[in-house]
Amino acid sequence: MTRIPVSVLGATGVVGQRIVRRLARHPRFELVAVAASERSAGKRYADAVHWLEEDLPEGVGDLIVQPCTPDAAGAPIVLSALDATTAREVEPAFARAGSLVVTNASPFRMEEDVPLIIPEINADHLALLDLQRERRGWEGGIVANPNCATAVIALALAPLHRHRPIRRVAVTTLQAASGAGHPGVASLDLLGNVIPHIAGEEEKIRTEPRKLLGTLGLGRVIAAPFKVSPQVTRIPVAHGHMASITVEFGETLKTHEALECYRGWEGAVELVDGPARPQPRRDVDRGEGMTVTVGQLREDGVFGLRLVALGHNLERGAAGAAVANAELVAARVLGRRELVA
Amino acid sequence: MTRIPVSVLGATGVVGQRIVRRLARHPRFELVAVAASERSAGKRYADAVHWLEEDLPEGVGDLIVQPCTPDAAGAPIVLSALDATTAREVEPAFARAGSLVVTNASPFRMEEDVPLIIPEINADHLALLDLQRERRGWEGGIVANPNCATAVIALALAPLHRHRPIRRVAVTTLQAASGAGHPGVASLDLLGNVIPHIAGEEEKIRTEPRKLLGTLGLGRVIAAPFKVSPQVTRIPVAHGHMASITVEFGETLKTHEALECYRGWEGAVELVDGPARPQPRRDVDRGEGMTVTVGQLREDGVFGLRLVALGHNLERGAAGAAVANAELVAARVLGRRELVA
Amino acid sequence: MTRIPVSVLGATGVVGQRIVRRLARHPRFELVAVAASERSAGKRYADAVHWLEEDLPEGVGDLIVQPCTPDAAGAPIVLSALDATTAREVEPAFARAGSLVVTNASPFRMEEDVPLIIPEINADHLALLDLQRERRGWEGGIVANPNCATAVIALALAPLHRHRPIRRVAVTTLQAASGAGHPGVASLDLLGNVIPHIAGEEEKIRTEPRKLLGTLGLGRVIAAPFKVSPQVTRIPVAHGHMASITVEFGETLKTHEALECYRGWEGAVELVDGPARPQPRRDVDRGEGMTVTVGQLREDGVFGLRLVALGHNLERGAAGAAVANAELVAARVLGRRELVA
Amino acid sequence: MTRIPVSVLGATGVVGQRIVRRLARHPRFELVAVAASERSAGKRYADAVHWLEEDLPEGVGDLIVQPCTPDAAGAPIVLSALDATTAREVEPAFARAGSLVVTNASPFRMEEDVPLIIPEINADHLALLDLQRERRGWEGGIVANPNCATAVIALALAPLHRHRPIRRVAVTTLQAASGAGHPGVASLDLLGNVIPHIAGEEEKIRTEPRKLLGTLGLGRVIAAPFKVSPQVTRIPVAHGHMASITVEFGETLKTHEALECYRGWEGAVELVDGPARPQPRRDVDRGEGMTVTVGQLREDGVFGLRLVALGHNLERGAAGAAVANAELVAARVLGRRELVA
Repeated sequence: MTRIPVSVLGATGVVGQRIVRRLARHPRFELVAVAASERSAGKRYADAVHWLEEDLPEGVGDLIVQPCTPDAAGAPIVLSALDATTAREVEPAFARAGSLVVTNASPFRMEEDVPLIIPEINADHLALLDLQRERRGWEGGIVANPNCATAVIALALAPLHRHRPIRRVAVTTLQAASGAGHPGVASLDLLGNVIPHIAGEEEKIRTEPRKLLGTLGLGRVIAAPFKVSPQVTRIPVAHGHMASITVEFGETLKTHEALECYRGWEGAVELVDGPARPQPRRDVDRGEGMTVTVGQLREDGVFGLRLVALGHNLERGAAGAAVANAELVAARVLGRRELVA
Repeated sequence: MTRIPVSVLGATGVVGQRIVRRLARHPRFELVAVAASERSAGKRYADAVHWLEEDLPEGVGDLIVQPCTPDAAGAPIVLSALDATTAREVEPAFARAGSLVVTNASPFRMEEDVPLIIPEINADHLALLDLQRERRGWEGGIVANPNCATAVIALALAPLHRHRPIRRVAVTTLQAASGAGHPGVASLDLLGNVIPHIAGEEEKIRTEPRKLLGTLGLGRVIAAPFKVSPQVTRIPVAHGHMASITVEFGETLKTHEALECYRGWEGAVELVDGPARPQPRRDVDRGEGMTVTVGQLREDGVFGLRLVALGHNLERGAAGAAVANAELVAARVLGRRELVA
Repeated sequence: MTRIPVSVLGATGVVGQRIVRRLARHPRFELVAVAASERSAGKRYADAVHWLEEDLPEGVGDLIVQPCTPDAAGAPIVLSALDATTAREVEPAFARAGSLVVTNASPFRMEEDVPLIIPEINADHLALLDLQRERRGWEGGIVANPNCATAVIALALAPLHRHRPIRRVAVTTLQAASGAGHPGVASLDLLGNVIPHIAGEEEKIRTEPRKLLGTLGLGRVIAAPFKVSPQVTRIPVAHGHMASITVEFGETLKTHEALECYRGWEGAVELVDGPARPQPRRDVDRGEGMTVTVGQLREDGVFGLRLVALGHNLERGAAGAAVANAELVAARVLGRRELVA
Repeated sequence: MTRIPVSVLGATGVVGQRIVRRLARHPRFELVAVAASERSAGKRYADAVHWLEEDLPEGVGDLIVQPCTPDAAGAPIVLSALDATTAREVEPAFARAGSLVVTNASPFRMEEDVPLIIPEINADHLALLDLQRERRGWEGGIVANPNCATAVIALALAPLHRHRPIRRVAVTTLQAASGAGHPGVASLDLLGNVIPHIAGEEEKIRTEPRKLLGTLGLGRVIAAPFKVSPQVTRIPVAHGHMASITVEFGETLKTHEALECYRGWEGAVELVDGPARPQPRRDVDRGEGMTVTVGQLREDGVFGLRLVALGHNLERGAAGAAVANAELVAARVLGRRELVA
């Protein structure tokens, strides 16, 4: 089977590296271009990147980093790990030029005609893409995955909300260093410390889960009607965002019912037994980082349910999420039009 | 002024050491005996203790560790840092023998006739002591301070609850390694990890704040009527318990009103400015570890108020709390009877 | 091909778990028994073990933990991860009963007739086994792997020493938490701290590399004539022992010659490029934890050569080392006698 | 007594902050100006600085940050915590304008006519200042303190070398995060990791101790004739540089003689007892961070002596060192000329 040509924007960052790593061994995609900022363009990828993993995948190091323009880095599917400011400017150019941009960046996530997708939750929202192309006159389009903490929270809530509508959520996150990228947080600020603030994060947690768990109406997503009260913290852990979640329902959900919700859910969310789970050290890499682990599930006798969820912020929360969305786009969208490459 | 003779039970543990350190420089108390388990009794304190601080205070190292019996370690005021099992057995013996036992241990905290005290919140509850002595026929008595995480939470809630009754609280704690004592948590379990479980902790957080913030009725404390939903976690920080708190009131409390509550509160609780505060590294030692710092205060538009509180688990949450209670007992109780020593 | 039955002594400890994990997927060995202390014997392995990895390998959890006796846990090859005290008593019993005991424990390592083996260095020393059996009248025997830090140091030195005799070595180790087992070092002692002492470790580093790099003479190993000056430290890293090594030769070894020594060496030791390598985060898992990584190699203009080596203390330094020795024993010794199973 | 006006260059950095904190409570100095880069100049110090300590000292926050020019920030004594590049350019301008510049920066440390001083070791080297002023035609001058790791090493070696000449030194450092300043090392690179490289550090450790322990000859310092072989590492500790040191002498120094060297040494270096000392957690703050702690002292039977030294990199290694040099300059140099202020 011919593999689909894909390129990566922001390929040298922490998330970009993980996307590159996933693509380098991907059965359906062929990585044809890596693109990054002016500073890196023109260099060998191996020279431009501060590679954080064990080793560069074979064949990737010699790619010449391209500038982030459709001419240089266009492809039928373009995966973007750009920062928000650059993404806002660059991604529409690719969409206009015909690429399906699958982005980890935040600027377009909440736009009415942009699908914000976790395939296991709301693959049907991809239908917004037609609206988007029509409205914006784009041949390609933009499909987004959520914020890294949001991904964990939304996946933990989905099996419950699908069964019984959630009314209110209080969540405290314990987020890993890698969520801030590289260099990200100074070690002097994080060693043996907690920082109870991450710029812009709480707004994303308030809004994105509602869109993800919303329902597709006439040409738009009707947000799920629950409300989220978040407090984020950064802690001295390398990888893995944990969320301590309190869920209030309109009508009580018993512990055993909640357990059934998770047991009956297919894919991406797993209950973990044991009195002290989930834990980053033991659970973050499950399912190659794509599994969200849920533990500590019980009625609290106060608001409703209590649970703790954990997911790999760079995989389920970013790189893996983007690649999963690219697979969805490849399966559902690309088949409907001529393959450019 | 003559100093009051005091002794310390469980003097070799993490909390006991801190009590000893506070007493060694205390203007009103004179440390006359250190007591610990059979294993340590008879040794020089310097040899028996795995001292975790910089240096042993002068004059303390040569004390001979006593067994935990009233004969060997009795004093008008006895500060106890015993583990729960030993405390349950040993503390009543001291109380019976005439000592006022100021304990950090948990067994008697929730007993109806035992004052559970944070002086800045409910010094008046000390009146339960009369009841206790009468009922139990003790010449001395037992006064308890709360669990270390509870102390932080209760102090953070007190200024609000005194102003407007709290209805429900959701709290996620991020607790330091030293809260588990020494050796406590294995480094292999805690380095770069989070453990979302601490045995018995959540029950204490559910019940103790209600007693602390309760009102003294006819010979007993009527618990504050709010409910608490806790999720505890242990994180790789040495000292400092953080609590991420959601507060629901019967009637909305505005952010500016909440700020006023804290500004008008005297002692022990301080607002800290700055977008990323409080932090263990910067705030845990305030007021010699006795100040609880509150930040991130705002209406959440969902449940009510959101805030983050931080306190030193070994000081405000244990050793400093016990010494503060001993000072309260010395001022209010000892004056009323003959000094034994 | 029939797989060889093997059992594991001390199967519930940190090293034992890793041996079990390796055996559970081993093509030549069949794990027939797990044994541990009285406290664990009789329980399901899943219930007895505080499993530190992601998940128990399939089929292992239901094994009933056996007592450490030849009757209950004997096998043609027995892998031991016992503590030193128990090993000293128990391992000879197994050897006497006919098992080939491949041990990670320290008591017999330096005995004259016990092969201390790293297969990539001194597989020929296995010949001592004949002497051992004859002297001790054992049907089986004991083969040891070295101390975890020693394994890293010896493998880093081997390519150099084989080329040009080493005269003196100064080494400072930076050792990971898992080297102390579980619970091992208290988190309160290790978070943000360094402990410049590990009981008994320096003596092992002084003596074991000399035996490993020694030459097989008439019925005994003539220790390599170099001397080692070690200083050990424990640092807040989960896995991976690093060694900062100064090597003095009788005759100068140039940097380029040293590089050639490593490039020409087959297996187990790898040079790593880059100004800031090796690093635990990036290099510890190479070769499934069996590769020792060497970097920072250069003449120092003072003593001779400088280099930094890193290896996985639980794999190359313990569990993987034991399994590698078991493979060696299976290939070279078992073939020569009747297979018991 | 009138206090001497002093100013601080680079006042917003990690070291600058600590200098400001020391000066704010200094009995002999009066902080009259804080200066920093263009980006900060003109702002209130409280607004310009990312203060890493508990609280800004009183009276400092309202100072307006000055540009680093003699006009704006000149004073009889100027303490500099500038980065190397800026220091090279700016410090001579201040010296030319009449200030005595006491610098923590590296550019001039090894210049022949610049005193490199640790007062407890080589206060007499201050005599180079006359030569410097004469040669360069400066009314003021530059006095430097050493690199932060060097300070610890040199102080640990001084009592030995003064007693018996050292021939060779092998040293491995374990350096704290704060040594890299702020933001310094990314937390993602340092959490649970070791980085065996710090740019430029080893060259400083090779050369600076020899100048510090050198002897003042005819108008210049004759470097101590020993050689140093360093390997540096960065570890996940906030504050405190540890050095694992091997010392070779021309003639053997016994352990008890070495102990005598330290016991007889006055100030700044202290032996610490106990099998597992020194440790950052327990020893780094001794003497307000100005004491270097030495432990693990013993003959190694290979090269000579082994020891482990620890010092606070920001105090003994930087801010405290600069203030101590300023005190020395105030006492010995300022008295000899008219006070400008």
